[in-house]
Amino acid sequence: MSAIHQNVSTSLSASTSTFLAHNNLKSLKPSHVSVAGRLSAVVKCVATPSAEKTGASFLSLFNHFSILTVGAAFDEAYNTNVARNENLAKLQAGYLFPEIARRRNAHIAKNPDAKVISLGIGDTTEPIPEVITSAMSKRSEVLSTVSGYSGYGAEQGEQKLRAAIASTYYSGLGIEENDIFVSDGAKSDISRLQVLFGSNVTMAVQDPSYPVNILCFILFLLASLLSAANELLYRAYVDSSVILGQTGLFQKDVEKYANIEYMRCTPENGFFPDLSTVGRTDIIFFCSPNNPTGSAASREQLTKLVQFAKENGSIIVYDSAYAMYVSDDSPRSIFEIPGAKEVALEVSSFSKYAGFTGVRLGWTAIPKELHYSDGFPVAKDFNRIVCTCFNGASNIAQAGGLACVSPEGIKAMHEVVGFYKENTAIIVDTFDSLGFKVYGGKNAPYVWVHFPGRSSWDVFSEILEKTHVVTTPGSGFGPGGEGFVRVSAFGHRENVLEACRRFKELYK
Amino acid sequence: MSAIHQNVSTSLSASTSTFLAHNNLKSLKPSHVSVAGRLSAVVKCVATPSAEKTGASFLSLFNHFSILTVGAAFDEAYNTNVARNENLAKLQAGYLFPEIARRRNAHIAKNPDAKVISLGIGDTTEPIPEVITSAMSKRSEVLSTVSGYSGYGAEQGEQKLRAAIASTYYSGLGIEENDIFVSDGAKSDISRLQVLFGSNVTMAVQDPSYPVNILCFILFLLASLLSAANELLYRAYVDSSVILGQTGLFQKDVEKYANIEYMRCTPENGFFPDLSTVGRTDIIFFCSPNNPTGSAASREQLTKLVQFAKENGSIIVYDSAYAMYVSDDSPRSIFEIPGAKEVALEVSSFSKYAGFTGVRLGWTAIPKELHYSDGFPVAKDFNRIVCTCFNGASNIAQAGGLACVSPEGIKAMHEVVGFYKENTAIIVDTFDSLGFKVYGGKNAPYVWVHFPGRSSWDVFSEILEKTHVVTTPGSGFGPGGEGFVRVSAFGHRENVLEACRRFKELYK
Repeated sequence: MSAIHQNVSTSLSASTSTFLAHNNLKSLKPSHVSVAGRLSAVVKCVATPSAEKTGASFLSLFNHFSILTVGAAFDEAYNTNVARNENLAKLQAGYLFPEIARRRNAHIAKNPDAKVISLGIGDTTEPIPEVITSAMSKRSEVLSTVSGYSGYGAEQGEQKLRAAIASTYYSGLGIEENDIFVSDGAKSDISRLQVLFGSNVTMAVQDPSYPVNILCFILFLLASLLSAANELLYRAYVDSSVILGQTGLFQKDVEKYANIEYMRCTPENGFFPDLSTVGRTDIIFFCSPNNPTGSAASREQLTKLVQFAKENGSIIVYDSAYAMYVSDDSPRSIFEIPGAKEVALEVSSFSKYAGFTGVRLGWTAIPKELHYSDGFPVAKDFNRIVCTCFNGASNIAQAGGLACVSPEGIKAMHEVVGFYKENTAIIVDTFDSLGFKVYGGKNAPYVWVHFPGRSSWDVFSEILEKTHVVTTPGSGFGPGGEGFVRVSAFGHRENVLEACRRFKELYK
Repeated sequence: MSAIHQNVSTSLSASTSTFLAHNNLKSLKPSHVSVAGRLSAVVKCVATPSAEKTGASFLSLFNHFSILTVGAAFDEAYNTNVARNENLAKLQAGYLFPEIARRRNAHIAKNPDAKVISLGIGDTTEPIPEVITSAMSKRSEVLSTVSGYSGYGAEQGEQKLRAAIASTYYSGLGIEENDIFVSDGAKSDISRLQVLFGSNVTMAVQDPSYPVNILCFILFLLASLLSAANELLYRAYVDSSVILGQTGLFQKDVEKYANIEYMRCTPENGFFPDLSTVGRTDIIFFCSPNNPTGSAASREQLTKLVQFAKENGSIIVYDSAYAMYVSDDSPRSIFEIPGAKEVALEVSSFSKYAGFTGVRLGWTAIPKELHYSDGFPVAKDFNRIVCTCFNGASNIAQAGGLACVSPEGIKAMHEVVGFYKENTAIIVDTFDSLGFKVYGGKNAPYVWVHFPGRSSWDVFSEILEKTHVVTTPGSGFGPGGEGFVRVSAFGHRENVLEACRRFKELYK
């Protein structure tokens, strides 16, 4: 019996709806209950209960009703008259990771004894430092005490955490605690940013780039493809039927989608786009250190990007989720670039610093200086989005976040990051020693290995079949990733070493 | 020094941007860096660094740069060329709870020694049962172990939790584990439902109803007010300038907003709308047991609602967040009504059952039988929304959720709910004994007290000034709430007793 029905006494079997409990039927007046679907199936049921009847006799009525309903369902399913959201109806399914999973599973089925190692999806594998988990554990425990209990928190995050994030990651950069919006992770915040900007914006993304970001934005941008095509300042001609039809989201023979400016990042341009060929968009989505290429943009490059945004009046959505992996003097934050606060906001996360992929905690920093064309501060609208459509990150996760940015937590995060960077070095050295051109790795937990002239999926399959190691085909991140494979450094050390041993075996 | 910059050695003070560290400047080639805003302010800076210069001399350059930037900011702030989302630009600020907070603070300032008791906002006050917090604490701890660590979880929630929610709350109702989408709370899920349905839907809400729900939907509906006015099947004439202008969201002299069907719920109709006067909408938002009126719709009423939805081909978004407070035989789930699975989805939450308002955990149940007009299952699109724009609820909160629906957890939740229900009975008895007409309370933690002929805000002020108790004026929930005050039963027992003692003093 279900928990919430515990006050309802009934002798009917649990497989019947609890609405048939005898004491419930008194409220059903004798009447015709006509339940008709306007569009397809029509279900008509005549129920004439009286208060004297027993539960058992109503069970037979119920069965009659059920049969009628089920009968109708067999004839033709009922459909509401609500039109499916056309944006969703036209969006192709996400392709990359499901396809990898499909191939991985097929491989395991074919090779049941193989020890498959996954260096594919960028999911953390190492435990969360104890100094951080103990803070979350303690916060959980005090929630069972009168003095330690707390209910709704501020939607923007706990003030102490906002202040600590500002001072830890943006010291001296003019970002203050009220510019920080604590979130349940970057993916959710990117979705809230879409709601913020609405459907009439144009956007640019790096090519290659992480597919989810593109997917998220496309949901909203498809609307403007249909309704605001005239307003697009730059548009490579691609028939909208190709985009909105049955062709899939990352179709290899299409290099650019209308309304989305693909900024090609290749070894030739140092993985930084040639901005002279990039059209003006409202939003520029830029991830550095980059997933998947592992490259971090230099100070000079980011200065150019900020200048480009300023000349165009664009807003940069800067994803700095891998900033702590930077080893050289590349900026850790876009706000290190003078003037960036007027053209950029920054999304970040504890996921890859403290193993918080499952705990869910991140933040978005929006400077007061960032304004829409009418002078209205972007942060003010984002604050409203957060207050209306979010209720704050879990208080327990926030206690973990506060521990992350304590002196011991920062040290512990650097150890986590350091561990994955050692993995990265092992992978880089391996492919280096085999004569491959290897990119990334230095400032990010991703190694971007070049297989010139070969199809990414072919290489992916070759590696999977011959070494039982799952990687990610570069073309899954966009046409600019063709010919590359991404090897993730998230893995237990023994698995990384074993994978590299197998790579050496395959490509020696 | 910020954590992520620990690898950067610099002798500059922390108040300057770390980008000035000496070793960073080598990448800055001698060049003209021109940063110009197209729209308003123009900031031009000439920087001609060479690699030989010292950090100190660049500090002066930085200062020069800063002065230029700041100078420009003083002249005129830079604006991007990105248009503000017109929906947000036109939306009035949320009014109710900020206004209550303002009046509360003014009262405290005027009466610094008064012991103010809040029975206003519906936030839980009692500790989370230990059986639940200990599960979260344990889950936190094992995340620091190699064997217990887990990274990304399924976006839809952990399978065990989905199954447990389905069997606990929907036993025998035909809702299965894969119909359950675990969330970080009802508010977030309502926002995701907006994204799901898109901007071209029409909607109905109860009047009075909880303002956030309306706010959330309005964000999206304002678009259709502008673009799809012709498609509205029902529209009371209200000049759109009234709605979209400077009049505020809940202006008292406006009873209905265009494109939103207000379903009046009053004592006269048993707090259930007269559906014969309600126009057809795509979405019907329905909360039962209701916040703020505290009324639960009966089985007969909900049968009518389902029939109404079916006749119109509408989708009911049923908010059952207070279902465990039901004391009589009112349905705990819309799915207890035959046929509801074809026209309804249900949003719910552990917030008010286990004190999870800060922990953040809820769910949405979407039956496979719920289809759009083209026959496409709503759940399939929602699954995509969840996968694209959400990364699952915190794994620690989910461990708490699993403990909630264990046998001990269910017992403990009933004790929490029982405690608040005792509070409710005390409040109901108090106003009853004073001769007021009192509604709600029986099936919900809210008491809806009638002050016929009086303004809700006047009564709110009278109670605050004379008893130092914060309540909520009914008119803040919509015009149908005028003349009522909502008294929340969320409070420590001694506060509820003291508040009631003061009510008796005031209204004896």
